[in-house]
Amino acid sequence: MINPIAIQDVRPRTPEGFPAKAVTGEWVRVSADIFRDGHDLLFARVIWRPTGAGDWRSSPLSPLPNHRWEGTIVGEDIGHHEYVVQAWTDTFATWRRDTLVKHAAGQDVGVELEEGALLVSSAAAKLEGSAAAKQKKALCREAADSLRNKDLPVETRLAAVEVDGLLEVLKAYPVRRDLSSSAMMPLWVDRPRALFSSWYELFPRSNGGFEGTTKRLAALSDMGFDVVYLPPIHPIGITDRKGKNNTTSPDADDVGSPWAIGSKEGGHKAIDPSLGTFEDFAALVEEAGSLGMEISLDYALQCSPDHPWVTEHPEWFHHRPDGTIKFAENPPKKYQDIYPINFWPAKDEDRAALWSACWDILEFWIARGIRFFRVDNPHTKPLPFWAWIIREVQTKHPDVLFLAEAFTHPKMMARLAEVGFSQSYTYFTWRVGKQELLEYAVEVAQGPAADYMRPNFWPNTPDILSGPLRNGGPAVFRLRLLLAATMSPSYGIYSGYELYENQPARDTDEEYLNSEKYEVRERDYDAPGTLVPFIARLNAIRREHPALQQLHNIVVHPNWNPNILAFSKASDDGTDVVLTVANLDTAGRQETTLNLDLTALGVDSSRGFTVRDELTGATYDWWGASPYVRLEPADQPAHVFSVIQGVQGVAD
Amino acid sequence: MINPIAIQDVRPRTPEGFPAKAVTGEWVRVSADIFRDGHDLLFARVIWRPTGAGDWRSSPLSPLPNHRWEGTIVGEDIGHHEYVVQAWTDTFATWRRDTLVKHAAGQDVGVELEEGALLVSSAAAKLEGSAAAKQKKALCREAADSLRNKDLPVETRLAAVEVDGLLEVLKAYPVRRDLSSSAMMPLWVDRPRALFSSWYELFPRSNGGFEGTTKRLAALSDMGFDVVYLPPIHPIGITDRKGKNNTTSPDADDVGSPWAIGSKEGGHKAIDPSLGTFEDFAALVEEAGSLGMEISLDYALQCSPDHPWVTEHPEWFHHRPDGTIKFAENPPKKYQDIYPINFWPAKDEDRAALWSACWDILEFWIARGIRFFRVDNPHTKPLPFWAWIIREVQTKHPDVLFLAEAFTHPKMMARLAEVGFSQSYTYFTWRVGKQELLEYAVEVAQGPAADYMRPNFWPNTPDILSGPLRNGGPAVFRLRLLLAATMSPSYGIYSGYELYENQPARDTDEEYLNSEKYEVRERDYDAPGTLVPFIARLNAIRREHPALQQLHNIVVHPNWNPNILAFSKASDDGTDVVLTVANLDTAGRQETTLNLDLTALGVDSSRGFTVRDELTGATYDWWGASPYVRLEPADQPAHVFSVIQGVQGVAD
Repeated sequence: MINPIAIQDVRPRTPEGFPAKAVTGEWVRVSADIFRDGHDLLFARVIWRPTGAGDWRSSPLSPLPNHRWEGTIVGEDIGHHEYVVQAWTDTFATWRRDTLVKHAAGQDVGVELEEGALLVSSAAAKLEGSAAAKQKKALCREAADSLRNKDLPVETRLAAVEVDGLLEVLKAYPVRRDLSSSAMMPLWVDRPRALFSSWYELFPRSNGGFEGTTKRLAALSDMGFDVVYLPPIHPIGITDRKGKNNTTSPDADDVGSPWAIGSKEGGHKAIDPSLGTFEDFAALVEEAGSLGMEISLDYALQCSPDHPWVTEHPEWFHHRPDGTIKFAENPPKKYQDIYPINFWPAKDEDRAALWSACWDILEFWIARGIRFFRVDNPHTKPLPFWAWIIREVQTKHPDVLFLAEAFTHPKMMARLAEVGFSQSYTYFTWRVGKQELLEYAVEVAQGPAADYMRPNFWPNTPDILSGPLRNGGPAVFRLRLLLAATMSPSYGIYSGYELYENQPARDTDEEYLNSEKYEVRERDYDAPGTLVPFIARLNAIRREHPALQQLHNIVVHPNWNPNILAFSKASDDGTDVVLTVANLDTAGRQETTLNLDLTALGVDSSRGFTVRDELTGATYDWWGASPYVRLEPADQPAHVFSVIQGVQGVAD
Repeated sequence: MINPIAIQDVRPRTPEGFPAKAVTGEWVRVSADIFRDGHDLLFARVIWRPTGAGDWRSSPLSPLPNHRWEGTIVGEDIGHHEYVVQAWTDTFATWRRDTLVKHAAGQDVGVELEEGALLVSSAAAKLEGSAAAKQKKALCREAADSLRNKDLPVETRLAAVEVDGLLEVLKAYPVRRDLSSSAMMPLWVDRPRALFSSWYELFPRSNGGFEGTTKRLAALSDMGFDVVYLPPIHPIGITDRKGKNNTTSPDADDVGSPWAIGSKEGGHKAIDPSLGTFEDFAALVEEAGSLGMEISLDYALQCSPDHPWVTEHPEWFHHRPDGTIKFAENPPKKYQDIYPINFWPAKDEDRAALWSACWDILEFWIARGIRFFRVDNPHTKPLPFWAWIIREVQTKHPDVLFLAEAFTHPKMMARLAEVGFSQSYTYFTWRVGKQELLEYAVEVAQGPAADYMRPNFWPNTPDILSGPLRNGGPAVFRLRLLLAATMSPSYGIYSGYELYENQPARDTDEEYLNSEKYEVRERDYDAPGTLVPFIARLNAIRREHPALQQLHNIVVHPNWNPNILAFSKASDDGTDVVLTVANLDTAGRQETTLNLDLTALGVDSSRGFTVRDELTGATYDWWGASPYVRLEPADQPAHVFSVIQGVQGVAD
């Protein structure tokens, strides 16, 4: 038999029953449509626990408009959790509402008072055990006596149940009538960095190998980054190696693309000797850890023609009728230096061996301290492979995370997140206009996939020098960085960004000129005038403000100026609010009058409040919802205001 | 392991796995998100059959934008059906696309041609059995030979597979690589009247009982109605009987409300003696059948204090501490003439007996020829009860239908439809403005619940003399009728509508003055100037035009005039299109220039076309998408145009 109380559209969830996602300590909003036949009042709650383990915790749900109910759960530990939404008919509250209405209408409620006394007495009869229960039992008995006491005025008898805690007890006693439960809903809880992280990507070979990179970590830490992502560190193939600027005729000293993985010196478990030794790598990982950072490696499942697998396991590749192995193609384009892996060999034991070997690679680097993998092009490998390998790895190592580099169509991006990826690259890279930026920020925060897909906003990557950055000046670089860092709890940049590297290879794609993918690129990070201080300040603001560390609470504040966008974010508990007001015009001053949603800002609309620009330290006292703002791109791309309740210096 | 090809968001479906709905012969659009990793081409199809029985039928899906695919299935028989969406990688089409691209780019495709020949040969090897398969096998062998024939030009070798039917064969041969299937999706198929029906509600006691009602049927049939719905026909209680206009002090000759069911003369299986005998009832049902109509009874699960169940089964009611049975209340309102049933007695055997007795009532009237029940206030009875009883009844009698009179919140309405109701009363009754009417028509046709909730539009009911009809003139009555009859495949009116009955009881609710619910109301249906001819014409148009008999294909055509709305509907096969252009201003002439979506009308935008007003017979030749229209409310509330391809009298 179906539930007497309908409990439908329970969130958070994924479309096909994979776990929704949260991080430890995050306030997870649980909501559902809850309703029953007739007019009786309902009580609803959510219960949750680590899957299959221990006591259930419980939290009440509150009614929103249109039969939606909402509450909050928090996962304390990493790993699988389960939650259930429950509802039952609140018999006592229904009795109370109806009796009060009848009494207010002048109707005799003598029988109703006796009915109430019976309810409360039955509750008392069921309360046994603990001292607290016995105390409640006594309260119930007193209330029942008062309800029955005809010497008292009706108002007094009715008020007898308004004792502290008694109405709460009576929600569940004497019985949970019509008790109804949702399906068991799975929730995977990650460590906090799955949600809040600041990424920096660098090529170690451009930074003096592992040793030089280790030395750079302190500067990256000072800038406020906490994940340093390295493109593949494995030996690079010689056969069909690409030359500078992706040419097919390399010079003898050309270093090749790190994504052409594998040579006679080894494959995915080896280190390119030019970068250093395993000891050097261990030192890098250790230094990162001591700075509160971590190293992320690239998990790029493809091989150069020289990868040991090509000879050891030809059955793991695609073959052509002439006996050759297929290189990567997107006809008519050919990528001769890359052999794609055939994830579905004809024999299932070959498939099992291949998938197991892929898993071994992860275990190998996990054993060497890696806990965050950036996965190259996951949308060109099978979905069942990802569903399997991420589950296997996280079962053994629940703290391991995966970032999906899937610049593909939205349904595939969501599906990869659903089957297990912890974070996802996004379309932020190409969102430039006011409307599309705001819509996208709201979509990633609150759209249907927000229950399980966490965004990671990148203004640039080694593959993408996107629109506004191409030949763009420092103001553009400041703006794009600020938008990424304030709109999304996770964001990242690829090194060179802080030096305003802006030269495109050509007009027909988004490659950098002299791309670091094909050559070593040395940089002077200590040059004057870089973006470093600005980045450091932004990352400090992100660390100081929980509002910028969460994903879901975002509110857009409209204004008439098409060059100015304003949005606020609030911490889970609502005590920290950050209002970002950005000027998209990097060439000229813009001004506007904002239309603020004061409720979203957590301020009392009848009083003034103070905002402090966290970039400059300037404070402004605002009265009302329509403050004037002016932004000069030469000074700063945006105000990043923290909101302070009450005007400073004005007594409450 | 999950599907290698993602098949998600399959429609039609309900939120919680109950069957979606269709009627026999209806074209059911099946759609899904279908995609896989990489760039290989896919083939997708839907297979379906009566549940668990017989061979699967199969129909290909076609790609729409954004990885959505769509196809059509048709249920031939009443009852449970199941369908599955399947997809696999189209290896041969992928090979062909890639090889053509490479050849076009001037690349050598020698190895690719051999690859293609191998594919086609493998397909040949698997084709066995029927003469047709052997013929395909021969075609494959010829194609493989040509692909391998180096004496031929490459173009000729590539063209060798372009043989009639061969590409189709090669979609599934030699293997269905990555074969993926959706869950088994349930679909319930009803008889056609579940979708397309024209209802007329009358109180038999105002029409001379069953005998008089039987005589009226011919007139109702002439008007084009096919379902005649009778409020409860059972004995009416005496205790606390309501007087005229719902007063609590009835005269001795007051007839009471038919919804106060049950007296010493019997309950839900008895007939009020004043209406006639079971023989008279049988004659009524038979006459309706012979006119191609059917009688619908009210299934109102509540009792008057005099219902036999009250004494025979006091455990089926709610009790108060003073021993009395609870009458219906919505505090502070009291309905002393009605005892609500307690669907959850304390003992489960009592519940089982009660539910079984409720089922018996349906079986009793089904045995007497009733196949369509109008269910009174289903939203005040438990959802599990409806899920159970509708399934039980339809398992035994798959042609029995249920109309939910649930004027309640949208989520409950959808849930009742989900658990089994065949049709639902709607909010049309209160939708008056242009925007809200159009939005509602699109919502019921294409919203999330349209897969399983079928609307039935009623301008009035005995409970609801709604806004525009209150003191409204004939033009309003024409307009509301026309909107109901053209926007929804099912609609109905309560008798008196054709006589423009428009007097409200008061300003504070929607009751009729001298409501027929509490008294006999005799009418002169033969008076001059009634709405009868207009109703007859509208129902005739509905019967002549399959476009008006289906639910889902509706398109809104914009125009600047806030008083004129235009929408078109198309038959499943697209050959019949009806464009309705209505004037919501019942007091004055309105004119506009339409902005027609010519594709939706099925006309060639480069040529003219003819529309015929089915209400007047007038035809208009239109060139282009922006015809001028003018409507005079004194003449007609709307044009109901059938669309004819090509201007009449102009040769192709």
